[in-house]
Amino acid sequence: MSQNRAAENADLIAHLYEQVLTQAKPWLATADDDVLADPASRPTDGSQKRPAIVNSKTAEELSKVLDLGIVSEGVDDVPEFISKILENSVNTTSPGFMDKLYSSPSPPGLAADMLLSILNTNSHVYTVSPALTVVEKYTGKRLAYEFGLRESVSGGVTCPGGAQSNATAMLVARNIRFPQVVTDGVASLSKPLAVFTSSASHYSMVSAAQNLGLGGKSVRKVATVNDAMDPDALDKEMQKAVDEGHIPFYVGATAGTTVRGAYDDLRAIAAVAKKYGAWLHVDACWGGGAIFSSTHKHKLDGSELADTIAINPHKMLGVPLTCSFLLGRDLRTFVVANRLEAGYLFHGDSELAQSDGSTTNGQAQPNGVGEENEDWRNSARILNAPHPDKVTDMAQFTTQCGRRPDALKLYAHWRYYGTDGIGKHIDIAFQGAKTVLDLVRQSTTLSAVEAGDPPCAQACFYYSGTKGNLGPEKRITREIVERLVDYGWMTDFAPGKTKQEEYLRVVCNRLSTDEVVGNLVKAVEIVGRQVEKEWNL
Amino acid sequence: MSQNRAAENADLIAHLYEQVLTQAKPWLATADDDVLADPASRPTDGSQKRPAIVNSKTAEELSKVLDLGIVSEGVDDVPEFISKILENSVNTTSPGFMDKLYSSPSPPGLAADMLLSILNTNSHVYTVSPALTVVEKYTGKRLAYEFGLRESVSGGVTCPGGAQSNATAMLVARNIRFPQVVTDGVASLSKPLAVFTSSASHYSMVSAAQNLGLGGKSVRKVATVNDAMDPDALDKEMQKAVDEGHIPFYVGATAGTTVRGAYDDLRAIAAVAKKYGAWLHVDACWGGGAIFSSTHKHKLDGSELADTIAINPHKMLGVPLTCSFLLGRDLRTFVVANRLEAGYLFHGDSELAQSDGSTTNGQAQPNGVGEENEDWRNSARILNAPHPDKVTDMAQFTTQCGRRPDALKLYAHWRYYGTDGIGKHIDIAFQGAKTVLDLVRQSTTLSAVEAGDPPCAQACFYYSGTKGNLGPEKRITREIVERLVDYGWMTDFAPGKTKQEEYLRVVCNRLSTDEVVGNLVKAVEIVGRQVEKEWNL
Repeated sequence: MSQNRAAENADLIAHLYEQVLTQAKPWLATADDDVLADPASRPTDGSQKRPAIVNSKTAEELSKVLDLGIVSEGVDDVPEFISKILENSVNTTSPGFMDKLYSSPSPPGLAADMLLSILNTNSHVYTVSPALTVVEKYTGKRLAYEFGLRESVSGGVTCPGGAQSNATAMLVARNIRFPQVVTDGVASLSKPLAVFTSSASHYSMVSAAQNLGLGGKSVRKVATVNDAMDPDALDKEMQKAVDEGHIPFYVGATAGTTVRGAYDDLRAIAAVAKKYGAWLHVDACWGGGAIFSSTHKHKLDGSELADTIAINPHKMLGVPLTCSFLLGRDLRTFVVANRLEAGYLFHGDSELAQSDGSTTNGQAQPNGVGEENEDWRNSARILNAPHPDKVTDMAQFTTQCGRRPDALKLYAHWRYYGTDGIGKHIDIAFQGAKTVLDLVRQSTTLSAVEAGDPPCAQACFYYSGTKGNLGPEKRITREIVERLVDYGWMTDFAPGKTKQEEYLRVVCNRLSTDEVVGNLVKAVEIVGRQVEKEWNL
Repeated sequence: MSQNRAAENADLIAHLYEQVLTQAKPWLATADDDVLADPASRPTDGSQKRPAIVNSKTAEELSKVLDLGIVSEGVDDVPEFISKILENSVNTTSPGFMDKLYSSPSPPGLAADMLLSILNTNSHVYTVSPALTVVEKYTGKRLAYEFGLRESVSGGVTCPGGAQSNATAMLVARNIRFPQVVTDGVASLSKPLAVFTSSASHYSMVSAAQNLGLGGKSVRKVATVNDAMDPDALDKEMQKAVDEGHIPFYVGATAGTTVRGAYDDLRAIAAVAKKYGAWLHVDACWGGGAIFSSTHKHKLDGSELADTIAINPHKMLGVPLTCSFLLGRDLRTFVVANRLEAGYLFHGDSELAQSDGSTTNGQAQPNGVGEENEDWRNSARILNAPHPDKVTDMAQFTTQCGRRPDALKLYAHWRYYGTDGIGKHIDIAFQGAKTVLDLVRQSTTLSAVEAGDPPCAQACFYYSGTKGNLGPEKRITREIVERLVDYGWMTDFAPGKTKQEEYLRVVCNRLSTDEVVGNLVKAVEIVGRQVEKEWNL
């Protein structure tokens, strides 16, 4: 090996990083150009330049353009390759990217991400990830504290995405409440389990139930009022499940639904969940960011009553993807629920293993006796488990083995902006959605989907025409969304009440200033009129 | 909003990146210093400098050193913070990092990772990730091709880690073979399911079975010969399951076990799996890298007979964490198994939805009739499903919703080094392990755990003493491993045949040249003698 191997490696890494940054800088620096220009002054004669936000092509077209063939000997054409990827990707750093629940990645988050890459740390066990394990434990505990989960055993761990955080919560609940399922499976239960979530919740709730072997039918969709779960309807559904001989063991509330951003009334739902002895999970993947805002945190009132809360800082906060946390009132439940031995990995030796008296390598551990553990929050298994602060091999908490230490990205972001700084970002996002709807209501050609202020950072509306006679028609909405790209905007659409209905859904973020959303609404009016005229509507 | 917002953002990102790189460069450039020095010349009087590989501290000590408190207003101390993280993390870029199955992150992989961070792309749906979706589809298909999965419907998708790839394979197998489980749950089956894997397989196999509601007991551990599954024992175990009234539906073979790197005989196992009509999954997360080496690819002979294969390019290849693929002989099975509707996300409109005739938003779809689908590989549900090349919303393939486009990291690595270049890396790693064992056998104080050449890139041995009378004692092994850190080496240890036994396991990689492994073995001899002498063994 060359005595200079490491120095050459450092030089090559620096060189390749520079090649990326050289091309990314102008791409970043011009991200606002289209959306800060007056949409009314945009030429429509074909002379306008392509918008920076996306270069729309089909997968077939892109396959040709990217020319991905790999040669046996390898090829050093990193700059050309970067150029093609940038040219054909969505510029999420533009304020015009209002399509999904994430947005421009934060600079301190990006610095943390670069550090994570270079360190190439796997945070499964402490010995190989000392600093980043401590960062994750601190950040998880601090985040749980913000949501009111403030017991000594409270905290949080990262999962690879919100769907996984939600699924892990249901797994923990199932295994804690019904210990014999861990060894004997779901078929060993004498009664079916029932899961409750609102009809506006994320599809990962159903996905989790079917993964866990409970079946999609175990999920009972509770009626909503303005997309927020109706606590009375929940009570009735849970009683109905009991009457049918099912066990209502899990309530999945939502803080910030995907489409409209509705917040379930957590305090009222917690009371119902408690009445039936159910686990309360809150999917705050999207809306949980409001906890940082003194103006909006009241929407999460009652979160302190949850058993588990999922939150994705890569959504509302602007932390680079992926960064998702599952917070727990009692992290001992995570460890007990996921207890498996692997002597080749976990050398803890171990408080965990000892508490079972078992050394069977890689086998599921017997987790208790009897079918159902009614007082599951205070079972001996949990009370005798080691304090979660002392469990430093993070792979003991979830089913994930190898794990990228995503927590550092939130930590760096939070440290840099502070709680107040993040709160201001959240306020801009929420205010942006309110301003959009205010402008929509002032517009003669646009209509809001519902009355009142938006609960979160989304605004839902449609083009109703110069005569005001058009509904949220799918074909019109989709045409508008497609044409908006030419003006530098990417927005999304969502299903309406019938199969023919779809409306525009725009997601605001910390870049959604008055100027930005003003131009957005103006652009929608302009392209809507184009479509109305061309289509003789 | 400032007209210069985007330019300022670009400048800030570049500035923070520079701060990371300025500190990371010397950290990278000196990564080899300790391990290329002669271990015999290392002072033992306390005058030696701290090794670069790790600064061992307990979590309590580190909490104080890192001083993680967050202030409301935020603080811009990125350089100080980076410095503390680097100082207290493991330097995985050193050839002395031989503790786990990953190693120094590759420069082109790092460049790709930086690009991914800046793009902040979510590859769940095509509209927001055009280029990176095409890259994932190309890379997955190309990788599947290497393993012999070469049907038109073959390909691969990324999962967030190997445990998740393994779990997803079992989920797909369960849902395809027993369609009613998707809606009605595992309890609806009239017979219990049985899973087969070797006693040396990764713990994620048991974890997957318990997650899926099958229970840990559903996993039958098959006996091994030199840690590779015994096909005859598998046949007997599967017949036993049938005799007991269970359905032997899934065989999880291993290509490269975690501890010793044993390769199961895939061709022989495939024949047994076929006899019982079972799904064949291959956990090649670790050993799959051998497919790139003309010298070692024969160890994966029979991989073309698998239904699914998991491989982690972030392990043997050196692609930065996380990069894991689940490859499939027929990717239609992935889509059919995970079919859920979410009209707000998937706007495909949709071949998928139409094939079910259903529009129930967010509900699990009925996937078929009857309990068991005997001819599951050719069921109408699968044959009528859309061609996987045409499914461009990647979240349709697995349970993951939001996803970082990890495939780009493998693609960039592969493009840069080529298939042959990666093959040479693999050869160095395998040769490194062989050289370690050759040196161990020449040594008068060390003993190999087993006879013959190592099957993969791990070498397992122990300090047997100047009189040759010491066994693989746990306390001696752990003491040696701890002292090796002072010489710049991080190695791991694994459980032996009894609770008192543990031996050294070192993992070689593409940096494990003759010089590196020579110094490693010398260092083990030196610290072994120290311990023997001090402890009067």
